[in-house]
Formats: sequence, structure tokens, C-alpha cells
Amino acid sequence: MALALIVGVGDGLSASLARKLAARGYSLILAARDTGKLEGLAGETGATTVQCDAALSEDMDRLFEEVDAGSEDLAVAIYNPSARTKGALVDLDPTTVRTALDVTAFGAFLMAQQAARRMVRRQSGTILFTGASAGVKGFPRSAPFAMGKFALRGLAQSMARELHPQGVHVGHVVVDGSIGPAGGGSQSTNVNPDAQLDPDAIAETYLSLIDQPRSAWAWEIELRPWVETF
Amino acid sequence: MALALIVGVGDGLSASLARKLAARGYSLILAARDTGKLEGLAGETGATTVQCDAALSEDMDRLFEEVDAGSEDLAVAIYNPSARTKGALVDLDPTTVRTALDVTAFGAFLMAQQAARRMVRRQSGTILFTGASAGVKGFPRSAPFAMGKFALRGLAQSMARELHPQGVHVGHVVVDGSIGPAGGGSQSTNVNPDAQLDPDAIAETYLSLIDQPRSAWAWEIELRPWVETF
Amino acid sequence: MALALIVGVGDGLSASLARKLAARGYSLILAARDTGKLEGLAGETGATTVQCDAALSEDMDRLFEEVDAGSEDLAVAIYNPSARTKGALVDLDPTTVRTALDVTAFGAFLMAQQAARRMVRRQSGTILFTGASAGVKGFPRSAPFAMGKFALRGLAQSMARELHPQGVHVGHVVVDGSIGPAGGGSQSTNVNPDAQLDPDAIAETYLSLIDQPRSAWAWEIELRPWVETF
Amino acid sequence: MALALIVGVGDGLSASLARKLAARGYSLILAARDTGKLEGLAGETGATTVQCDAALSEDMDRLFEEVDAGSEDLAVAIYNPSARTKGALVDLDPTTVRTALDVTAFGAFLMAQQAARRMVRRQSGTILFTGASAGVKGFPRSAPFAMGKFALRGLAQSMARELHPQGVHVGHVVVDGSIGPAGGGSQSTNVNPDAQLDPDAIAETYLSLIDQPRSAWAWEIELRPWVETF
Repeated sequence: MALALIVGVGDGLSASLARKLAARGYSLILAARDTGKLEGLAGETGATTVQCDAALSEDMDRLFEEVDAGSEDLAVAIYNPSARTKGALVDLDPTTVRTALDVTAFGAFLMAQQAARRMVRRQSGTILFTGASAGVKGFPRSAPFAMGKFALRGLAQSMARELHPQGVHVGHVVVDGSIGPAGGGSQSTNVNPDAQLDPDAIAETYLSLIDQPRSAWAWEIELRPWVETF
Repeated sequence: MALALIVGVGDGLSASLARKLAARGYSLILAARDTGKLEGLAGETGATTVQCDAALSEDMDRLFEEVDAGSEDLAVAIYNPSARTKGALVDLDPTTVRTALDVTAFGAFLMAQQAARRMVRRQSGTILFTGASAGVKGFPRSAPFAMGKFALRGLAQSMARELHPQGVHVGHVVVDGSIGPAGGGSQSTNVNPDAQLDPDAIAETYLSLIDQPRSAWAWEIELRPWVETF
Repeated sequence: MALALIVGVGDGLSASLARKLAARGYSLILAARDTGKLEGLAGETGATTVQCDAALSEDMDRLFEEVDAGSEDLAVAIYNPSARTKGALVDLDPTTVRTALDVTAFGAFLMAQQAARRMVRRQSGTILFTGASAGVKGFPRSAPFAMGKFALRGLAQSMARELHPQGVHVGHVVVDGSIGPAGGGSQSTNVNPDAQLDPDAIAETYLSLIDQPRSAWAWEIELRPWVETF
Repeated sequence: MALALIVGVGDGLSASLARKLAARGYSLILAARDTGKLEGLAGETGATTVQCDAALSEDMDRLFEEVDAGSEDLAVAIYNPSARTKGALVDLDPTTVRTALDVTAFGAFLMAQQAARRMVRRQSGTILFTGASAGVKGFPRSAPFAMGKFALRGLAQSMARELHPQGVHVGHVVVDGSIGPAGGGSQSTNVNPDAQLDPDAIAETYLSLIDQPRSAWAWEIELRPWVETF
């Protein structure tokens, strides 16, 4: 079959994506800064895990050596990581702003460039970015997150205009809200489960983007729970 | 099963939608100003056809009497009609502007209100509008189309914010480009088939919106062919 | 000097505009459905008043006969009227939706077309529309206002793309918030005066758009009070 | 009077801004990586020049020591620098992407934070960012510029929401097109002077933002030449 790469695995969305892609027959590579926590998911999905700090060129290079090690073509590449710091603008530590740009946007570029090199050659493949409402609306006391997610959206939009005519599909999924447990039903008693996104539900939209025929491609889609005001 | 209503049937997209919805087991009502041309499609999909000028309240009322005549719940309502006139602003006949607003936006309201009345009661159902890039970008020499499609988008966005928390899913599909024949392969020798949207491909996205769990709803998605510059 | 036309006079913004334009030496025509209330302002600014239902072609034609009656060129045309109805979508009277489209958008087209005919000839002039945040964001329980103001924005954007290269400046001013009394200082004790826009402050931005050299034109600007969340 | 700071001086826009602010009576500090080229402008406007690499925290700290050295309050702070690299995504040197983020967005944060600390205290002041159409539309073969300018816009929007209620005005000016010589009249014979923005015309809009009463603040304005298609 084909290979799917997920960078930034750990939270519920990545796990849902991994399970759904595995169920479709994709071979999987899961990359994370801390691969220790991925053992269960890797066992369940037959995935290879790779330790990788996404904002470091050398780590990303090493990850793609792993991608090239197998015989399967890279069909899907998904980028999830982000860094955020909340706080009054005047109080922010500048290093957290730089980290936000590095982890949220620069790492996305590093993965996307490597993935694009392999996909453009075959005029085929899908690159997906996990965005946030902070990428379309800059919230107060959240400048670093806004900067990182806006930059990510700019990358995705520029890539869509550049790579779509080369046969590579680029998608930016704006996740508006907090992600709850798969299957719904938050454990926490002070969270309204209807106010959270079920990661399995989000993952379905990722799959539908992967499935889109190139005659009618979307480059962006915004998802939020039915009860969410926006 | 359940009932699906398509208003503004005739072009390739409506026919693709009708076939895919019928294949899923929906009962169908197809409404058009001229139902003569729908006989083949109606026969193929088992649909009921209703003559209806979408911008006329009384026609829309009559159409929904037909919707209520059966025993099935209205699960899906899709609005397609639009009117456009190209030309320099200074040369436009004001009546064409009014018609554009009526057919593209006011008729959409009429259908959406009737559909919403039935869906809100059951806290369930999907209302979809066929938009255009003219609804997000006002092109020169095309003021009437811009006015109509912007108004349609305003309706859809207002409805999404109002009806999502009531369990009714509202979607606005921005179709960016001209729609070619189903299955691709334009008959015309001077059209690049890659530059047209395959109506079957568009219809797949309508279905994926209908399928979205309410935990992760999109209210808008933009579709264009892979080779389209934007 | 030159002539300035303001359609939809009555509220504080129109009066501020009239005073500031008169102070700059423009001759003024003020149009409103009810001109009775304009006597004071007309006296103060030396304006001619014309009774006009902006959504009626024949009224708009008559208004522009008045525009042509003098010897001055039409340099500025401003459109303010809008109609809104609040309420649940399912409860709206369809006639209020049609009225909202007519007053907010169709009347704007009627004025803009007549103004453009006179300005394109001279490759000079400014046409300004008073928008609202409802034109960029569709609020719940406010579908008619969203439809009208979105349509108005589509008109303005289409016109900007078409008429700017012909030397006619088109501007859409998004007023986000309620307009208080000129000079600030709300009479009402339960309104925070900081939360309202001073019409004199808004009018200053209209003037700055009129003043922009064509080398650096804006087609849209959003205004809100400093304390307004958005 | 009051102090105005311009970071990233050199091109025509900064010089126009410096001249117009000086003419209004502001004391000026002009910061640039290479201050050698600023001698003439500094002499003409009575400005102090400071050598500063805007993306370096220590340089920015040193610049604001200079700001604090005088007795005047910082009333205006303007950030202009940007870095761009054109080219196919697959061919880009990752270091140019990081530089684009650093110069275009991170440096803007550094200046804005320091300026905000001084302005929030007095609940007064204006911070302006020079944006580009690349910040609202990601162009192909221009990913680094898109990333940097999108991030800048995210910063500006987040700051506007956070600082406006604290009395500090934040503005993002989208300059759409190339900037020609002040006063128009391009020297080059193969440039249409109408297709370029006159920096004096752009600077007028910066001044009008500085002048806006807080009752009606804009946080963004887009400027382009009248003949520019968009």
C-alpha cells in the first residue's frame, strides 16, 4: 500500500488519525519528541515511531531517511505540533514567541518541504496541517499562538496555490475548540461534552480531504462543535 | 428512510446530487422552474418533481406541502439556483439586479426557512447552499452576481450560528470554477477538462458534509479544480 | 466647488458628514424618505433636500435630476440606509427579508449606478457605502440584516475592482458598534459612552477616504470604539 | 512634543513617514541595520539614528534605551522590515524561512512589546505595522514571505484586541503593490508610474490612523494603486 506520516503524535487527534489510516491499509510512521508514550498506539497500528523535534532541520532530515527506508510511497503527511503561551503582551518572554514560531510554523515548513519533494515527483499525495481558530482570528493575550498559527495558514495557502497544479493536495484544517476524548463522553464532570470536538469526528474530515478527487479540491475547512458560538 | 429536497435542478451538479442521494436510499423531491427536463432523472432516481419558482413565496409554500405530503422526515435540503448578469455597472438594467437578489438569495431564504421549521423541531437535518467564488470575492463587471452570492453567504453564516446549536447543520459550498460533465472528459475541444469541476466530485463533498458528526461541523468549504489559480 | 450627495439622512452620522462636507465647501443634496426632519440641518449647511425612497428606481431617477439641475459636478456620493429585522429565522416574515435586501443593497446599487455614470465620465469622484459588522459576520437571529449588508459589501467590492481603474474611488466603511451623539457623552445613563462611536469621529474617516490620492486607495475600512471586543 | 520611532528605515516609505512626522513636530528616532545611508534624512528631519538588527533582542533593548534617554513620551512606533525569498517550495533553503519569520514577524514583536510597555502605562500611543498583500493571500513560490507577513498580521490583530481597550492604537497597513518614488513619476521607463504606490500617499494614511479618535479606531487598512487589479 502506501505510507502515511504523522508528525506530532500524542493527543487524541493524532491517535484517531493513526487508527483510521491504519484501518485503511496505510503503513504508518509516527513522529514525536517523546516516543515513549507512543508504544501502545504503535503496537495497535503496526506503526514505526521516530523521535523527532520537528523544529530542528537535522531531526526532520533523519525522519525522512526513515520515510525513504521503506519501499512504499509517501501518500499522506500530517503536521500537528504547536506551541502556545498565554499572557499579556507586555509580560511575554520573547523566547516563547520564537518557540511558538518554530514549533507551530517553521517545523511545518520543514516537514512540508520534505514531503513535497517526494510527492511532486509523483504528482500525487496529500499534505495536511492542523490549524486553529487562532490562525484566522488573533485573540488577546495570545500573541505567540496567533503568530504561529497565522504563519502556518500562510504556508498552507501559499503551498496550495503552488502545489495543487503539480498534483499535490494541501489542506489546512481549522480546529475551533478543544478536543475531547475519542467517542465523546468527557470524563471530567465540569466539561460539557457537546462543547468539545471528538477526535474521531475530526479525523473523518481529514480522510474526506484525502479522498477528494483533484477535480474538486478544498484547501481549507473549519470544524467546530455544534454548540460552539463563533 | 428520509427525504431529501433539491431546489434548482437541471445542471450537472443537481443531477449528481440526486443520483448519489438516491443511491444512499433517500426519497427525493426535485424542484425546478421547468420540470419537463427532469423526467429522465426523476425516472432514474424515483424522485417526485415539483414545478417551483424559488423566489416566489407561494411557490415555495406549495413545494413544502409536497414535502409534508409523505411520511418521511426532511433530512436534507439543498439550494442551487442563481441568476447572474455580466456587464459594466453603468449599463446594467436594475431589474436584473433585483432578479439576481431574488433568485440567488431571497429564494434561498424561503427554502431555508421552511426546511428549518421542519428540522429544528427534530433537532436534526442538513441545509446546504451552492455558493460561488463571487460570494467571497466581488468581481468587476459582475455586480449583480456578487450581490446575490454575498447575500447567500451572509444568510448561510447567520443560519449556521443560529441553527447549529439547535441541531441543524448548515453548509455553504463555494464552487470556484465552471462545472463540466459528470465523470470528467469535456465534450468541447476548446475546454481543458482539468480546469472544470466534475459534478460527481463536488457531490461527494456535499455528502461528506451531510455525514459530519455534529461534534465537528463545517459551515463552509471551498472547492476548485487542482489546476485553478486563485 | 463640487457637489456631495448623501442618501439616507437622519441619524447622527449623516448629519456629521453633512456638516463636515459643508465646512469644506461642498454644495450638498440630502435625500431621505422623510425630509421634514432635515430642515434644521439643511438650513445650517445650505443643503437642498430631496424626498426619496432609495429602493425605488423612479425616486432615484428623480433625485439625480436634482443632482443634474445644478452646475456643479457630483464629487461625492454616500449611501447610508439599511433595514433590519431581528428574530428567529423560522419566525421571520419573508417580506421583511425582501425589504432588507431592497433598502440595504438594491437602493445602494441604484444610487451607485447613477453616481458612477456621472463620475466615470470625468474619471473622478468618490462613492462611499456605510456598512456594518453584519456585512462581514452573519450574526444569529439576524439573517435579513446579514443578507442586506453582505450584498452591499459584494456590490462595493465588485465596484472597487471595476471603477478604480476608471478613476472613481469606491469605499465601504464597516461601522462596528452603535453610533452615539456627536461629540461623545451619551445622554442615557445606562450606556457606556466609550462603547459608542462618535459620528464626528466616523465622519473624519470618510473625509480621509475622500482625500486619499489615487496612488494609494483603500476600498474598505473597519471602525470600532477602542473598548469594543471583536 | 512627542517622540516617534521608525524601525527599518531606508526605502521610500520610511523617509516619507519621517518627513511628515517631523513636519508635525515629532522628535524622531530612526533605526536601521545600516545607519550610514540615513545621514541625509537624519539631517533633514533632526532625527537620531540608531543601528539595530530588529530581530535581535539585545539590539532592540539597546534601541529602547535610546528611546528612554530623552524626556519625550513615545507616541508613535512604526515597524517596516521584512525579508522575502522567492522560489519553489522544494528548493528553498530553510534558513531563509527562519530569517523571514525573524525579520518580518519576530522583530515586530520585539519592537511592539517594548513600545506597548511604554504606551500602556500612559494609555496612549499608536503602533503601526507595514504589512503586504502576502499577509492576507499566500502566493505561490513565496512561502517564506507569506509565513512572515501572515504572522505579522496575527500579531497585529491579537494586539489590537488586547491593547485597544488599554488606550493603545494598533494598526496594520496592507500595502498592495510596489512602492515608487515619492511624488510619483518613476525614473524607470518600463514601469507604469500609475501602477506604483507613492510613498507620500501611503504615509498620509499612516497619519490618518494616528489621528483617529479612539471612538472610531481601525486596526487594518489595505492600500493599492487605482489601476491595480486585486
